[in-house]
Amino acid sequence: MLSNDWENFAARMAEVRDLGNAVALLSWDQETHMPKKGMTARAEQLATLQGLHHERIVDTAVGDLIAKLESNGSLSELQSCALREFKFDRDRATKVPVDLVKEIARVQASALSAWGEARKVRDFRLFAPELTRLLELRRAMADAYGAPPGGERYDALLEGHEKGMRVARLVPLFESLCDWLVPAIQKISAAPTPRSDFLEGQFDADRQWQFTLELLEAMGFDMQAGRQDRSVHPFTTSFDPEDVRITTRIFDNLPLSSVFSSIHEAGHALYEQGLPAEHRRSVLCSATSMGLHESQSRLWENLVGRSQQFWTAFLPRYRQLFPERLGDVSPDAFVAAVNRVEQSPIRVEADEVTYNLHIFIRFELELQLLRGELQVSDLAAAWNERYRRLLGIHVSDDTQGVLQDIHWAWGEFGYFPTYTIGNLYSASLFEAALRSIPDLMSFIEQGRLLPLRDWLKTHVHRFGRIYEAEQIVQKATGIGLNAADFIAYLTRKYQALYAIRF
Amino acid sequence: MLSNDWENFAARMAEVRDLGNAVALLSWDQETHMPKKGMTARAEQLATLQGLHHERIVDTAVGDLIAKLESNGSLSELQSCALREFKFDRDRATKVPVDLVKEIARVQASALSAWGEARKVRDFRLFAPELTRLLELRRAMADAYGAPPGGERYDALLEGHEKGMRVARLVPLFESLCDWLVPAIQKISAAPTPRSDFLEGQFDADRQWQFTLELLEAMGFDMQAGRQDRSVHPFTTSFDPEDVRITTRIFDNLPLSSVFSSIHEAGHALYEQGLPAEHRRSVLCSATSMGLHESQSRLWENLVGRSQQFWTAFLPRYRQLFPERLGDVSPDAFVAAVNRVEQSPIRVEADEVTYNLHIFIRFELELQLLRGELQVSDLAAAWNERYRRLLGIHVSDDTQGVLQDIHWAWGEFGYFPTYTIGNLYSASLFEAALRSIPDLMSFIEQGRLLPLRDWLKTHVHRFGRIYEAEQIVQKATGIGLNAADFIAYLTRKYQALYAIRF
Repeated sequence: MLSNDWENFAARMAEVRDLGNAVALLSWDQETHMPKKGMTARAEQLATLQGLHHERIVDTAVGDLIAKLESNGSLSELQSCALREFKFDRDRATKVPVDLVKEIARVQASALSAWGEARKVRDFRLFAPELTRLLELRRAMADAYGAPPGGERYDALLEGHEKGMRVARLVPLFESLCDWLVPAIQKISAAPTPRSDFLEGQFDADRQWQFTLELLEAMGFDMQAGRQDRSVHPFTTSFDPEDVRITTRIFDNLPLSSVFSSIHEAGHALYEQGLPAEHRRSVLCSATSMGLHESQSRLWENLVGRSQQFWTAFLPRYRQLFPERLGDVSPDAFVAAVNRVEQSPIRVEADEVTYNLHIFIRFELELQLLRGELQVSDLAAAWNERYRRLLGIHVSDDTQGVLQDIHWAWGEFGYFPTYTIGNLYSASLFEAALRSIPDLMSFIEQGRLLPLRDWLKTHVHRFGRIYEAEQIVQKATGIGLNAADFIAYLTRKYQALYAIRF
Repeated sequence: MLSNDWENFAARMAEVRDLGNAVALLSWDQETHMPKKGMTARAEQLATLQGLHHERIVDTAVGDLIAKLESNGSLSELQSCALREFKFDRDRATKVPVDLVKEIARVQASALSAWGEARKVRDFRLFAPELTRLLELRRAMADAYGAPPGGERYDALLEGHEKGMRVARLVPLFESLCDWLVPAIQKISAAPTPRSDFLEGQFDADRQWQFTLELLEAMGFDMQAGRQDRSVHPFTTSFDPEDVRITTRIFDNLPLSSVFSSIHEAGHALYEQGLPAEHRRSVLCSATSMGLHESQSRLWENLVGRSQQFWTAFLPRYRQLFPERLGDVSPDAFVAAVNRVEQSPIRVEADEVTYNLHIFIRFELELQLLRGELQVSDLAAAWNERYRRLLGIHVSDDTQGVLQDIHWAWGEFGYFPTYTIGNLYSASLFEAALRSIPDLMSFIEQGRLLPLRDWLKTHVHRFGRIYEAEQIVQKATGIGLNAADFIAYLTRKYQALYAIRF
């Protein structure tokens, strides 16, 4: 009865996907269109759907089906993949006691509130007790998962975002990157700062919006299979490869914010639109890791969107929309401005060079917290010491330091490294695309971005969860996670931009 | 253990509400924001959530809880109400075999498609076989429900929209209304037609939108607890009294369409916003019947929105938005134009006088179909004969006749009467509001609509499903469903407008 067992399993997997997608729609609506007072009811609706989602995953009947299918030798390769990936998710879901999940949700709510209060008075100490409690719960959660093969407690959390990745591989990699970045940033800082005064002043919101839509179209974002809205914090969400939604934010006085938000989110969105729709309601039709997801957004935002060639193509139109402010700005001056390197205390405002130091600091601190080598009470001091040492920055108060990110207030540990993993993958993938499409840069210079989108779809997106991230990158580039490609990219680009030698 | 049983029951009821509300959000999104290609996945998501919704309602554990609570004498009055209403819904859901539900869904899909095809070639015969099949299934469904006390097969379907109402009451009521309407319409038709040429031409869509927003605000629609969007067919949906959404449609060359759509839907929306939020996730926090719902939209659209007083207040602003077209139109001329009575073949374009004849025709035909007194093959001829006899109209082809409404293609029988029930209730309720607020018309003349909204909230909205529709109307007006109030209203209004005597 393989066929019946498989069909039952596929139906259960599909139901779980549908529930997950409904949760995603309710969340999207909450951030984009929901009227303010709708929050009370929405919180209940989300809790109910998330509860059902969990219930359907851990259902013992599904466990029995999986066991039966596993012992059956006649699954196809793709069926085996789907079974393996669904089982991976289900095992994680079943390992955590329901009481722990509820306790985390409860503490999360009060931690978010304490984080907000602490930010108001700019004092980490108001948040420290809640963070201590959340950290304890996350350690308990990691212990419930158990360290994965070859890993430690931190890896149990990392595994939820980046399957197969291990601290033992990340530490030397991040350290080698850091060893290159710190002196490179010092050299860049010593060089003259490019002008960017033409980006100051007022930029009409409707025209900014219009420009982002034109960029999305050029990137090949399918507007029949997605849409863009505005929200406070830009994000991408997806309910299907043919229904992928991004948001952007528009500030009148910060024109680049909408441009790079839209490009970044569209990078994520192209991944989602490129997933294998033939596996629509299977777990295989998902992104394989957060690091690989971030590689797509970063590749478009930085390697494409901050390149000389990109602005050769798109600056004329941008100038046309804002003639008073940008009418006399040359592509060279514009590209120099959008690639300004600055030692800023805030991660989300960081350029692509300093960005990874922000991540490295968070990763190191998280690791020490999870290992019990650092106490929450010492976290702010440890944070500030590292910013001083690695970025030469004096953190003026905790909102500019340890209180800046929401991740820890969510109880999210083990996520930050995926940002740097994404940056590293993006350089390797772009390098491979260049080898594979010799005219790529001249295509970009003509505003022709579809060859790159198609290459990414073929070599990255369409695999969904059939392979792990590093397998996909290995197949596409010939090499796994490494810092050398990214360092080579930064070297080429910033030596030219700043007329220096690293 | 009453308290625990009740808490368990309330939690199950809340879960069912949350699932229903999630379904409503997915449907709203589908009509307003979903990208075109999203339909494939959305259909699956909706089917999954609707399936879970049904599964949770019919769950035997819930049945056991209900039985235990029923045999317990210590429920409060409100608890008993909630139990009774939930049980009513659950009994209906359990009575229909799952296979029948699935078969209806399947035939519905092909019937909708056949209906579309038949409309293209303007020939009912292409739709007749599918309608025959749908009718058989709905008869089977009605028989599965069983005729309610004092009722017949049709009542089993009507009961799903208008609990407690019976064909035996509707037939004489509708006939008496019809007896008054037919000669009245003939007299109106003999009188000179008011001019309405100033409503032709182009009306800027943004200004139309702006005007609808101002009307919503004046009506007291809470924009912090709701929103308005555009869609092909205007509708109202709600996920909570604090999250109620309406849509409108805007045609450049039909300015009144957006105005009266928005007022109509806002009438529905005020009902939803006025439901008892203290029973938020209970079945009690719902509209008690479709007829009562329609009474709210009709009251605002017709008794308020087409009154002399309303346009005394709002025409100055409307003229200001469209000075070229409306600059020299007097309130009298405008009110005459928005109340033009015309013998049109199309229900949704009908005025408030002829409208109920359209409903009466559909009700009679449905009743004969359900009773087996009319065959689908004879339906078009029967339709056309009635339009000729009652409205003096020759139906030129089936798209102007029996193919015009989507209801039957959905397999929806027993719904049409609620439109007329709504019209009748609206007149009685407005009359009662006038008695209760002597200055009501002068408030409306000043654009002050909140006293009426508050009266409706107090006397209608806040009861949710605690009472049946007619009980609510009886308490508010002193009289149940009747045609006299509506006839009196039409008499007063149209004698004055057309300078005639009925």
